[in-house]
Amino acid sequence: MVQGELHGGSPETTITDIAEIQNATSTEVTFVGNSRYYKHLETTDAAAVILPAKYSGDFTPRIVVQNPQLAVKILIDHFRPLRPQSFEGVHETAVIHQTAKIGENVTIGPGAVIGLDSIIGDKTIIGSNVNIGQECSVGHDTHIYPGVTLYDRCTIGARVILHSGTVIGSDGYGFTQEDGIHKKIRQVGSVRIEDDVEIGSNCSIDRATLGETIIGEGSKLDNLVQIGHNVKIGKGCLIVAQVGIAGSTKLGDYVIVGGQAGFAGHLQIGDQVTVASKAGVTKDIDAGQTVSGFPAIPHNDDRRQIVYIRQLPEMVQRLKDLEGKLAQGDSSE
Amino acid sequence: MVQGELHGGSPETTITDIAEIQNATSTEVTFVGNSRYYKHLETTDAAAVILPAKYSGDFTPRIVVQNPQLAVKILIDHFRPLRPQSFEGVHETAVIHQTAKIGENVTIGPGAVIGLDSIIGDKTIIGSNVNIGQECSVGHDTHIYPGVTLYDRCTIGARVILHSGTVIGSDGYGFTQEDGIHKKIRQVGSVRIEDDVEIGSNCSIDRATLGETIIGEGSKLDNLVQIGHNVKIGKGCLIVAQVGIAGSTKLGDYVIVGGQAGFAGHLQIGDQVTVASKAGVTKDIDAGQTVSGFPAIPHNDDRRQIVYIRQLPEMVQRLKDLEGKLAQGDSSE
Amino acid sequence: MVQGELHGGSPETTITDIAEIQNATSTEVTFVGNSRYYKHLETTDAAAVILPAKYSGDFTPRIVVQNPQLAVKILIDHFRPLRPQSFEGVHETAVIHQTAKIGENVTIGPGAVIGLDSIIGDKTIIGSNVNIGQECSVGHDTHIYPGVTLYDRCTIGARVILHSGTVIGSDGYGFTQEDGIHKKIRQVGSVRIEDDVEIGSNCSIDRATLGETIIGEGSKLDNLVQIGHNVKIGKGCLIVAQVGIAGSTKLGDYVIVGGQAGFAGHLQIGDQVTVASKAGVTKDIDAGQTVSGFPAIPHNDDRRQIVYIRQLPEMVQRLKDLEGKLAQGDSSE
Repeated sequence: MVQGELHGGSPETTITDIAEIQNATSTEVTFVGNSRYYKHLETTDAAAVILPAKYSGDFTPRIVVQNPQLAVKILIDHFRPLRPQSFEGVHETAVIHQTAKIGENVTIGPGAVIGLDSIIGDKTIIGSNVNIGQECSVGHDTHIYPGVTLYDRCTIGARVILHSGTVIGSDGYGFTQEDGIHKKIRQVGSVRIEDDVEIGSNCSIDRATLGETIIGEGSKLDNLVQIGHNVKIGKGCLIVAQVGIAGSTKLGDYVIVGGQAGFAGHLQIGDQVTVASKAGVTKDIDAGQTVSGFPAIPHNDDRRQIVYIRQLPEMVQRLKDLEGKLAQGDSSE
Repeated sequence: MVQGELHGGSPETTITDIAEIQNATSTEVTFVGNSRYYKHLETTDAAAVILPAKYSGDFTPRIVVQNPQLAVKILIDHFRPLRPQSFEGVHETAVIHQTAKIGENVTIGPGAVIGLDSIIGDKTIIGSNVNIGQECSVGHDTHIYPGVTLYDRCTIGARVILHSGTVIGSDGYGFTQEDGIHKKIRQVGSVRIEDDVEIGSNCSIDRATLGETIIGEGSKLDNLVQIGHNVKIGKGCLIVAQVGIAGSTKLGDYVIVGGQAGFAGHLQIGDQVTVASKAGVTKDIDAGQTVSGFPAIPHNDDRRQIVYIRQLPEMVQRLKDLEGKLAQGDSSE
Repeated sequence: MVQGELHGGSPETTITDIAEIQNATSTEVTFVGNSRYYKHLETTDAAAVILPAKYSGDFTPRIVVQNPQLAVKILIDHFRPLRPQSFEGVHETAVIHQTAKIGENVTIGPGAVIGLDSIIGDKTIIGSNVNIGQECSVGHDTHIYPGVTLYDRCTIGARVILHSGTVIGSDGYGFTQEDGIHKKIRQVGSVRIEDDVEIGSNCSIDRATLGETIIGEGSKLDNLVQIGHNVKIGKGCLIVAQVGIAGSTKLGDYVIVGGQAGFAGHLQIGDQVTVASKAGVTKDIDAGQTVSGFPAIPHNDDRRQIVYIRQLPEMVQRLKDLEGKLAQGDSSE
């Protein structure tokens, strides 16, 4: 099933589930994806362990695969089928505006609210107490978890997953000062979330001032991520938890951003850029670069900087020695 | 309308809307606020472009104004009138305690809950599934978006905007250790949000232990901001996304704080201080200062530090050269 | 009541409440826990001030105690009894699956939803518009504030407090790449929140891929905290606001983490470790260590580094002086 090579053990063994290596029993298969956990091989009771090709030990029975994560995905899909929902269909306490259009086989949970002229695609699941504004469009086979809010005129694609507490389409942070008072620039643009995007819990995705804020096809956002107004995220990007991207910044495709990193506004970030955790990006970045630090610089330069900083005490000592020698030299002249 | 000066084009042209420069059509007006986007002037189809006084090119037709953002505000207010709500008035599924006092022309959305003795001002809009505790007071013309929670005894002013997912009045982080156990100090104070404040989505504003946590008049908070117990924010402050302010810290008026910055507790920050993004403020700051870095220092010093750090490889080389010369000198003596 | 020693004043004075030092009236007791606030002693109207043993001034009447915070806790508990809820009992608009088991004296607020086979312990309070999935277990005397979401199969202990907007059990951030496409690894594990835990508002606690994400007994999380899949937090930990802990990292007991700090994944952090605010932890940390900076290093080393960095301008000058002297020496030879 996982296209692996079995070493030791019997191909006849019946496997009933997949489990973590510390907890797996003699009828369960487990895996080690990270060499930090090879130590658990000594004590596991698992029926077999999925290991990466680079594993050089002699543990058996093992199933060697190219990509243990993919094998785990396949086995979870196999052993843990989706369960039925507590509340199927459109719940009687959901409040759906009479002008909204609801597709076939849609689930709408208790207390969910759907506004004027909004459209919900077939087989989409909308959790309890979700708030969907007016003129929104939600694609088919999408899952919106409880407590999500969509403001008016947001577009959500097909097979999208939005986790609880996430807010899509709140006003961008736009003010102009007039006589010492911050006057609100109304945010009349919208948000477009393309197909196959997943957004974690408690994220804030602001609507555009004019035009659209866009999260590109297949991109995956972790929890507590901040996306400013008019930001464009390309396709297949990975944005880890607590990242903040300020207004109008554009990320290319397949950009990877580590946790707690931040971007200034109005930047252009090329395709396949990698930004390390906690980095602060203040300038445009060309495609393919890896940056870290604040202000973010090429990762190798940043690493070298850290090494140099750690040598500072030694440098000060060397400077002192030189000064001492020179003073001696002076006085001996 | 925007009090600008028209260069080229005809004052007779009919304008139907405002749009982003890349998307504007021949009947729409657009703007460039940031010189990064002057390049789009070459390809725009817009009927006219609003440009700042500092623009020195010869693009026409252009409308030159002192403050392009203010012009954008005026044009959005003109071309994009507010739309009617999906659900006007008090929705039949809202749950309002019989002792609560609701003003005139109030909208209360489906599933919203208002507790004992709370008061809602005239023309205020309360979104769907909003939770308002007991003894709260909400001013007139305020807009509370879906999914906001106010804990008991919070006071919200007039013309305030609270975006979805924001929590006002959750318990401050107060514990005292007793025999190795963290015992909760009950947080019995409250929160006061003054007039004309706007707070973004998914913010956490903790109630005071005793007394009040205060967000001053006209201050604007972006998304995912953390305000600890007993914090006082002055008037007209701008607090960008993902900032955290620890307990009892006081900000003066017109303080500006960049994204992901943090403040230790019990600090005094003067009026018109600017704190750069990602800064970590650990000490009091006098009025008018601009600080950055962690620990935060005057911005010029921080910038100089960064320059010096970048010179470290060169410094090490110079040190090596000196040592070499001196060693040579020694041996030649 | 607070086991303090009274200096000055009369033990007969009637105290009616506890208040902050700036606001306390002549019938209220107040406290100063932080020497920064001794200055308010000159102007307070309070009937008496609770002061720590280390206070060396002669203000009277004062009540000297070992732990002012503990005294404040005791006095708040005394003077500010808990108030009745707006909506007691199970509200008629709550939606409770017929298979769910609800204990005695439980409060379930308006619009709250409880899924299939979930169990709620005695005397537990569930706020309005809370979403509880299926097969969840919530212990007794627990308080879940409005707008919290529990995904399916989460276990919450007794006397737990979960603040509004917090999401427990959202999917961990797990994907595997297949032909350039990020494929979701379904997250089929769960979350266990042990007894006496308190979690602030708008936190995100992800479920495990397999197995459990665990928040250990008596640990206290502040607001906007991110806990990745399969993280284990020990007992009695304090995790301040906006901290992020990446997947599979394990914290020991009584670990303290300052605001906005972050941890990489798969780390082992020993008991009683302290991590300073904004630190970025990239390696395992032995028990009892205090670390700061990014990458985090022992706090004393980090402090020394900062001092050295501040000396850089002076170092460059000294280097220049040496080079000058040596050049002179050369030319004079």
